Order: sequence, then structure tokens, then C-alpha cells
Amino acid sequence: MQGNERPASGAVLDEPTAADMEALFERLKNWDRWGDGDERAALNHQTAEHRAAAAALVVDGAVVSLGRDLPLQPSAETPFPAHHHMLAAGDAISHTGIPGYEACGDYVGTQVHGLGITHIDALSHMFVHGLMFGGRPGTEVRSDGAQANTVMTLADGLVGRGVLLDIPRARGVDFLDGAGTIGVADLEQAEADQGVTVGAGDFLVISTGRDARRTDARGNLDPIGAGLAGLHPECLPWLHERSISVLGSDGISDRMPLRTIPGWPFPIHQVGIVAIGLHLIDNLDLGPIAAACAERGRWSFLLAVNPLRIPGGTGCPVNPVAVL
Amino acid sequence: MQGNERPASGAVLDEPTAADMEALFERLKNWDRWGDGDERAALNHQTAEHRAAAAALVVDGAVVSLGRDLPLQPSAETPFPAHHHMLAAGDAISHTGIPGYEACGDYVGTQVHGLGITHIDALSHMFVHGLMFGGRPGTEVRSDGAQANTVMTLADGLVGRGVLLDIPRARGVDFLDGAGTIGVADLEQAEADQGVTVGAGDFLVISTGRDARRTDARGNLDPIGAGLAGLHPECLPWLHERSISVLGSDGISDRMPLRTIPGWPFPIHQVGIVAIGLHLIDNLDLGPIAAACAERGRWSFLLAVNPLRIPGGTGCPVNPVAVL
Amino acid sequence: MQGNERPASGAVLDEPTAADMEALFERLKNWDRWGDGDERAALNHQTAEHRAAAAALVVDGAVVSLGRDLPLQPSAETPFPAHHHMLAAGDAISHTGIPGYEACGDYVGTQVHGLGITHIDALSHMFVHGLMFGGRPGTEVRSDGAQANTVMTLADGLVGRGVLLDIPRARGVDFLDGAGTIGVADLEQAEADQGVTVGAGDFLVISTGRDARRTDARGNLDPIGAGLAGLHPECLPWLHERSISVLGSDGISDRMPLRTIPGWPFPIHQVGIVAIGLHLIDNLDLGPIAAACAERGRWSFLLAVNPLRIPGGTGCPVNPVAVL
Amino acid sequence: MQGNERPASGAVLDEPTAADMEALFERLKNWDRWGDGDERAALNHQTAEHRAAAAALVVDGAVVSLGRDLPLQPSAETPFPAHHHMLAAGDAISHTGIPGYEACGDYVGTQVHGLGITHIDALSHMFVHGLMFGGRPGTEVRSDGAQANTVMTLADGLVGRGVLLDIPRARGVDFLDGAGTIGVADLEQAEADQGVTVGAGDFLVISTGRDARRTDARGNLDPIGAGLAGLHPECLPWLHERSISVLGSDGISDRMPLRTIPGWPFPIHQVGIVAIGLHLIDNLDLGPIAAACAERGRWSFLLAVNPLRIPGGTGCPVNPVAVL
Repeated sequence: MQGNERPASGAVLDEPTAADMEALFERLKNWDRWGDGDERAALNHQTAEHRAAAAALVVDGAVVSLGRDLPLQPSAETPFPAHHHMLAAGDAISHTGIPGYEACGDYVGTQVHGLGITHIDALSHMFVHGLMFGGRPGTEVRSDGAQANTVMTLADGLVGRGVLLDIPRARGVDFLDGAGTIGVADLEQAEADQGVTVGAGDFLVISTGRDARRTDARGNLDPIGAGLAGLHPECLPWLHERSISVLGSDGISDRMPLRTIPGWPFPIHQVGIVAIGLHLIDNLDLGPIAAACAERGRWSFLLAVNPLRIPGGTGCPVNPVAVL
Repeated sequence: MQGNERPASGAVLDEPTAADMEALFERLKNWDRWGDGDERAALNHQTAEHRAAAAALVVDGAVVSLGRDLPLQPSAETPFPAHHHMLAAGDAISHTGIPGYEACGDYVGTQVHGLGITHIDALSHMFVHGLMFGGRPGTEVRSDGAQANTVMTLADGLVGRGVLLDIPRARGVDFLDGAGTIGVADLEQAEADQGVTVGAGDFLVISTGRDARRTDARGNLDPIGAGLAGLHPECLPWLHERSISVLGSDGISDRMPLRTIPGWPFPIHQVGIVAIGLHLIDNLDLGPIAAACAERGRWSFLLAVNPLRIPGGTGCPVNPVAVL
Repeated sequence: MQGNERPASGAVLDEPTAADMEALFERLKNWDRWGDGDERAALNHQTAEHRAAAAALVVDGAVVSLGRDLPLQPSAETPFPAHHHMLAAGDAISHTGIPGYEACGDYVGTQVHGLGITHIDALSHMFVHGLMFGGRPGTEVRSDGAQANTVMTLADGLVGRGVLLDIPRARGVDFLDGAGTIGVADLEQAEADQGVTVGAGDFLVISTGRDARRTDARGNLDPIGAGLAGLHPECLPWLHERSISVLGSDGISDRMPLRTIPGWPFPIHQVGIVAIGLHLIDNLDLGPIAAACAERGRWSFLLAVNPLRIPGGTGCPVNPVAVL
Repeated sequence: MQGNERPASGAVLDEPTAADMEALFERLKNWDRWGDGDERAALNHQTAEHRAAAAALVVDGAVVSLGRDLPLQPSAETPFPAHHHMLAAGDAISHTGIPGYEACGDYVGTQVHGLGITHIDALSHMFVHGLMFGGRPGTEVRSDGAQANTVMTLADGLVGRGVLLDIPRARGVDFLDGAGTIGVADLEQAEADQGVTVGAGDFLVISTGRDARRTDARGNLDPIGAGLAGLHPECLPWLHERSISVLGSDGISDRMPLRTIPGWPFPIHQVGIVAIGLHLIDNLDLGPIAAACAERGRWSFLLAVNPLRIPGGTGCPVNPVAVL
């Protein structure tokens, strides 16, 4: 794996200390930035103007999904698969008893988070030292539903400019290995190669080539055993400075195996969600959009991510769709 | 209710006979139109060019949701509410045992169809004489999942031009009564009043004022007992001629109480889904988009409806979002 | 309803004050009785000898269920019905792909508590002043499962002597009205009429005639609107003195509408579960066992209530079965 | 594994041919035995007298569970674990808003069948040539619930004489290996060693030592990869002749890996359930009852298996409890 352990710069990145992380957390904390009680956090960068400009990016009108199929069978990626249960199928065509009413229906349910299902994290998903974004106590996420920072912040939809940074492409490989680390140099090299600049309000979407890696492994990819490529903590100030609104990845943005910094196993989730106020989208499927972007030579597009309106929810499975 | 029983034309519309409906079904049947095995059906009207033009409609970048909150409590509208179960809340912050990893998570599940949850019907939801769109036997919808005409047809997302026809506005009322019937004259009057023309590939979204009606009833609206306004079957040829791709409503497009035509209780679902190949979106919340359109004096917009990728699914709860 | 508001003694029972209830709670508290960390509570009365004696009660070997069917449709009694979802039915006989392996399967799930489903309450179901039986803090019931006083206390099964007290029979009515109150005099009159004495370790099962009442109401029984008959708080010392282990009823043992004693809406649950340490079984179906007992002229029997082994559970749906 | 491949007789048992199995199926078929429409099948052997005699077996009143904990985490034995979701925990003590009502509650759900959860198979679980017990077509098991041979046959409870045959004890080993085969000689040797005779109406419970094997494997037991010990098809006539009512095992009674007889991968399920009409209980935990029996030198006991009353169900998770 060593080739990918070092980012594009060639230099091996040092692991921060816990003290470094504490300082970084404090430095990047947006808790007072948008006023008391604000729950939109980094979404405040995503203005109506931003959305209008994103819509203007549409050229040919092709649509590409960035979501994975809901998994219905257990796997190393999805030990808790979704449930799709038919309530009445074609064999029960007359189940309603209303003559002529021939219909069927189903039930769908799923755990929201994890290492395999494409989902968005609301800001109530993560805590640092017992606090959520905005300094709200984690106890506001109650057993009968979260009472703050819920996915209802996104109830009116998430639509904006998506920018794909294709790291395997920038490195000239098919995919990053399991424990691959992405540094700032990688992000900036991808920007330069692709001729795109990540900016305020963007959905930044980072490909590590996970689908190619899964294919290479004949469909079996074990995130726990074999790891997932992710961002080095040095990227956090960069994400903050670029004022992105949402961070997505075909992994979970954090590297696995987890960082060994005491108390900071998931620095991107911990600092990204809790301090900066980023909504994170995990487990995207980025092969199709990477191909569509490469074909067109443009890596920004209109992206629509419309979570369901789940009162009290800490996130939602999603099917983000790009319009090119 | 009588005021609303008659459409805008003033004439009371006759109830078709079963023979009329059979003939209509045959006449509007698109089963051979797009080739053998086609499952996109009326979505074929929604081309990439259509989507690019829809994106060009965006002016100010405002976003408005057309979805209702997932209901978590039973009501007359939602006798089978959704499930939102916390799996770990703020009181179980250390449940993973990984030092510093403070997170919570949840489970969400729901029946897909019904009279209260905002959802899209895949073409496998309805049958006529045991057959689905394309003439496929209903038995292809199996107890372990639909095997044709599933919601996976929409896996790459549904994005296009939404057109709202605001019938209460056209009639000068706050809302249609429960059993109100909408005729072609209503649709065309709304078009004329609003200065918009429904066309090929559109998401046609029809407001009956259900949310205003619910508010008027202090939150209690019983679709079974008190009915839902819907389209008269005479609208079916019109929908076909206009070549729309998707039909949405704040009701279920069909009127309740059900039509008494023998064998044809749900003509819009039966002919619309099975013959024409329309995807239907039921139980939208159209007050906010109606207000936003009226404020701007424009009733067409970019609409993104991105169902989850559910293999074998007959539909999906959705949160459609307009960009204005 | 007034006829039933007064118990058998004829005297109208006074409503206790909150101070009365606090004193009663303290007086009946078994928290130190069986040693530190004990979670069996009143089940300690149910010894192996008790069970052997209960088995010796069996005469003819008839079996009678005291459970209701799991409700699959919503009703006023079961606003959150159970889920029974086929995963593969007879139409998917070959779903495994193994030649000759023709099988089907299903999923069953349910909320555990409520006013309609036959279930047993573990001691973690109720709190008084934030504490569970034994003085354990309610916060030990965590969002990821209860950590004390769980249904696993019953993992080895609940088998013992059941004693039915048939209050409508003792009063000469078909059923008690919704808000009917049962006093000590009722219990003792039923004992005398039936020739049975409630004693240590017993499952005391009290019929209010709910199934007859439901039948009388043509299947529609609204526990919220029309109430449920239940025990007056004066019965609590009696239950304590008799050293029963489990209290069951075709209602919820507590009367509905709820008591208006400030802070003590459910005195039987609050004092019975939290102070005395009784496991409660709610929503039994007692018509069949009442008939079987009356026919035989004996009102005690072997009763088996075997909850599922649910780690972290606060109760379990059950199907208690009497052997006569 | 070979030591266990051969049963107690020492002779390696031949694999039957498909023709042998067809003949056996016809020979053991009880479809007309108890009259048209009968669904109790082999339960007809379990009379009230049988139950009364079983109750008379109780000596000391000890209770022992034969059930496993509902699994909440995925494993090779339980790839689809059960769901235990708290709906309100101790952090939401005031969620009802009723002063003084401090309560919590939960949801429990599970797939019914499989290789890990202790459950009983109703007769609607299996088919041979598309037919269920009694010759009913498998299509009567519909996607909206089974319409015949459901678990409701057991609604009044299952209580009778349990007889444990402890095969590892008879062979002098701790447990049978994964693919171990049990023959008639094993059953009869265990009977002789234990001084017990399996008879009409019994719950025959066969230990293969699965819990000891799991412990030996440090908790990891993969039924697919490493197999499960089970009965050779030659046992089927013996089970029939003995007129047992229910067959239980700590495995699934059938051996895994599956038999290679074409069309007969699960002969015990296929002939036992469909022809003979046996209810099967799979995945018991028999270590505790084996120890309790050995200690007492008696291997028959009162056994209570009370499935939930699930309309349309093809089985039920259970916690069978022995009273000794």
C-alpha cells in the first residue's frame, strides 16, 4: 500500500498529535459564525445565487447518479443491509377486495449510517467532547429522535454545484489502496489537472476509485479488514478555507483503518461535522460520474441531493444525481 | 361538495361506463411505442434536451420542497406511519467503545404507498386485467421483489421541468372539497390563467389545495371518509396528448371516494400507469410551491425527484425539490 | 358507567392523594428485600416448589391461550400494529436457486407495549422519580438497550400457578364498563365465589370482560376514548401481601381514563412494577380461559409465559398458555 | 470429520437416490390421515392425555430454557440478526407529556427462519413439488400472508412431553462435527443409554452439541462453511413410526452441507414437514437442558413452546422452556 500512503507531494504526512487536533478543532470552529441557533452551518455558503449559477452549468442535460443501490444482502460493506419487503405482490392482486383495484406495495427500511449505504450525515450524527455543532449538548439527540441539528435542516432539498476531484486520475492509478491517504497536494493537483477550482457553497465530491477497487476484488471489499482511502487531517483547514458546504466521497472521507491519534479516530467526521459544520455524504458510487466528467472535460455540474424529510433524523439514505 | 363536483366548464361530467374505460385503455396504450422491453414508458418524452431546458428555467435559485414530512404518528391520512428508530442516541455516546468516536445513528423505514406519504409509484404498482405496463404479467411482481417495471427505472434520477397547475387558484377558492372533480376545462383554464403550457416530458403537478384543506380542518383530514379531489377520467386523453412524463398531485390524482365504474375504481392510476406509462407522485405538499410560483408569476421550474435505488421496489418515498 | 365505578363493597372508593401514593410507594418498596443487584423482584416468590405444585394442578391436559392475535391492522386499540411481512411466498418457490428447496419465509416485528398487544412488561419499563425497581437510575435504560431489569430476567421462562379472578362473573355482569374500578372487595368476593385463594408466587390474572365488551361494541373498542376497567390503588397493599409474582389483566391493570392523582396517573404500573417488583402482563384475552375455568369449576392452572430472550429488552409480546 | 460421518452402528449409511426419496415421501405421507382440511397433522398425536401425563413428569420444578438469545449482531449463524430498537429510553422519560408517567418502550422484529434464530416452522414453510402438507398448493402461501397451514395452528400453545436424545453423550464426544450424520442406530443407542423411549405426541429434541462446538470454535460457527450435524434420511420412517409431534434440534435437523440427492437437499424438512406433518424447531440451545437431564438421570420433561399468534405466519421465533 505504501505508494498510496504518501500523497501527491511525495512527502509522507505526519500524524497530528491529540494536541494538534484540539487546536485545529478550536481554530476551525464555526459555532458563532452564523448567529445563535443556526443549524445550517456550512450550508450558509450555499446561497440562492450559488444554486442559480450551478443550474447554469447544465449543458447537455445528461443525468448521472452518484448513489449505490440499497443493499438487500449482507456483505462486509453492509453487515446491516436494508429491508425491502413486499406487502402484496402479483399473487395477491385482489388483496384489497375492491373489484378492479389491482395493485401491489412494499416496505423499505434501512439503517442510515455505516460503511456501505449511500447516505448523508446530519450534524446531529457526531459529537466531540459530548457536544454537537453549535455547542449543543449531545443529549439533545434523544432516544425518541434528535431535537436539534436534524436532517430536517435539509428539508427543502440540497441542490448546488458539485465538483468532482478524481484522485486516482490525478495519480494515474485505477484506485487508491485501502489505507490510502489523500493530502492537500492531491486535492490541488486534481484541481490543476481538471481545470476546476473548489469554491464557496460547493458539494466537494472526492473519488478514491472505490468502485474500481471493488471490481478488482471481484465484488468483495472489506472496509474493516482492508481499509478505505480517505483524507489526511491536513485537508481540514483547506476545506474550511474553500468554504465548501458538503463533502462527499466514495469512502467515508476518513481513512480506515482509523487514525491512531488518541481521541481522534475520525478527524474528518469529528472536525468536519462538529467544528466546521459540513454535511458529509458517505459511500457514493463515483465511477459513472468520473467517466461522464472525463468524457466532457468538465468536472463541475448541478447536483441534487434531496434527503427525505425525517423529523428527528440524524441523516438519510440518498441518491444524489448530477445534471451535466 | 357540489360546487366542486363540476369542473370549470360548469357542466357536470358524465361518469364513463366500463366499456368506455376499456376502449380508452386500449386507445391510450403505449405498450408498443418505445420498443420491446422498454420500461421507461412516458419517461421517454423526457429527453436530455428537455432537462437542459428545464435547468435554464432557474432564475433566482430558490429551492422549495414539494414533499411532506415522513409521518411518525398514525392519522387518518397515514394509518401506517413511518418508523424512525434511534439505534444509539446521545445517552449512548460511547456505544462503539472506540475512544473519541462519539456518534449516534438511526433506522428509518416506511410503507411506500398509501394516501399520506409523499411517494412515487413505479410502473409495477398497478395492474389492469392482471397485466402491467408493456403487457408484462403481474406475477412478475413477486413476493421477493418486483422483477420488471421497478423503481430502478428511475435509478439515475428524475430531473426535468415541473409545471404546477393550481386549480383552487383558477377557481378562486382556497381548496377543492374532498370529492371535487377536475376536468380538462380546469386544466386548460389554469394554463391560461397562469400563462403556461404543459408539454412533452413535463412533470405535471396539480394542486387541489389539500394542505389548505387540512389546515381548515385543524389538521384532521380523512381521505377515506371525506374524500380527496382528483382528475376526471376525461383528463386521460389530454395527459396522453400532452406527452407528460410524470403526474403528481397533492392528492392521489384519482378522486376519492372511488369511481363507481365497475372494474375501474382508480381510472387515473389504472389508465395512467398501466396504459400510458406515467409515473405518479402522490400526496405532495403544494402550498409552498404554489405561493412561490404566484409570487414570481411563473409556474414552471426545474424539479428534482430522486428516488432511492431500491432493487425490486414498486415505488419510493420522495422529497421532490423545485429550483426556481 | 356509575354502576361499575363502585366496587363490590358498594362503597365508592376515595381517590388517594399524591401524598398517600408517595407513602404507599415507600411502604410497599421491595428494593432491599432480596439482596443487592437482585432483578427477579417479586419473581422470588415463585420457587421451584411453587412450579412443581402448579404442574400438579393439571387434570385433563386441555390447553387454553390467554393471548390475542398479533394485530396486523391499525385500530383504536392498536394504533401501531405489528408487521408481518412475507420475504418469499409461494410465488417465489425457487428463490433460493437450490433445486428441490421449496420454502418460504417471513418477518415479524412489533412495538412491545401499548394498549392492545398482549405483552409482558419487564421491570425496566417504568420509573418513579427517575428510578427503576431496585433504585437503579432510569438512565440505565439506554437508547441502545436497557442495561438492567431487562426481559432477560425471564430468559429461563415463566411457568407457575395461574389464578383467574373473574370480576364480571362475581358481579353478575357480562363485562365491566370502560372506566370501571375494581377494589379489594371485588378481588375477595371473586376468591370466595370461585373457591380459590391467591397466594405466593402466583400469576394473578384479572378479567374485566374486555373481550365481551369488544364484542358488544361490534369489535370497536377505544381504550383512550371509552376507557378500560382497572384496579383501584387500594389493591396495591393486597397484591403485596399476597406475594404474587406476576399480575395480568385483559386491560392494563390500571384504569383508564388515567387517575388524576398528581404525578400518579398509572398507580398499578408505578407502584406495582417499580416498588413491589411485579411483572405485568397487559391486554390478555380472557374469555376462553374464563369459560374453561367455569366449566371445570376450578380457577387455578399451570400457566406458561415464555418471553423471547431479547437482550436489552423492556418487555416482550407473549402468548401465555394455560394447561388445565 | 469422518468419525462422525458414520452413525453409531459403525456402518456408513448410503445416500438414497431421488427415486428412494420419492417413494419414501409417498409412503410416509399423512395427508389423508386426519380428515379433510386438517392442519394439525402430527400434532394430532399430542392429546390432552399426553399433556396431562407430561405435566405429571414434573418433579422438582426447575425451569430450563432451550432457546438462544435473539441475535442483535450479524454473524455467520445469523446474517440477518433481529432488530431491537428502543423507541424511548431513560433519556426521554417525559416523552409522553403526562406528568408522572415515566416509561420507556421498544420495538422487536426478526426474520423467522434461518440457521441461527431459535424458531418453529409452521407447515406452510416447506413445499414438495409445489405442495404443502395436506396437498394444498404452495400458492396458498401468499405475499400478504399464508392462508393455510399457518403458525395459528399453534395458537393455543404447544405443551407436551419433551424427550432429549443426547447424541454426543451416546457417542462419548463433546459434540458432533459439522457434517456429522445421525442414524437410527444413534437414536436408539441414546434411548437405551438414557433409559427413555420416544413415543406418540412427543417433542423429540436431538442434541448434536452445537453449543459446545461453538464454544470450541471460540464463538464462531459458520453453518454454511463448516456444516451442521443432522439426521440421515433413514431416520424419517423411524420418526413416523414413533408418532412424534414435533422435532427439534440444536441444528436444523437436516445435515449441512446439504444432501446431494437431486431434488432432495433437505430431506428432513421436505419429508418431515410436508409428508409427515411435523413441526420443526431449529437452532435450539441444548447444553443447559442436557446438563440438567444428566444431573437428574431423566431425559423427559414437560416442555412449553408457545409461539406468538401471528395470522398468516409461516413460523415464529420461540423460547421453549422445560419444567423438570
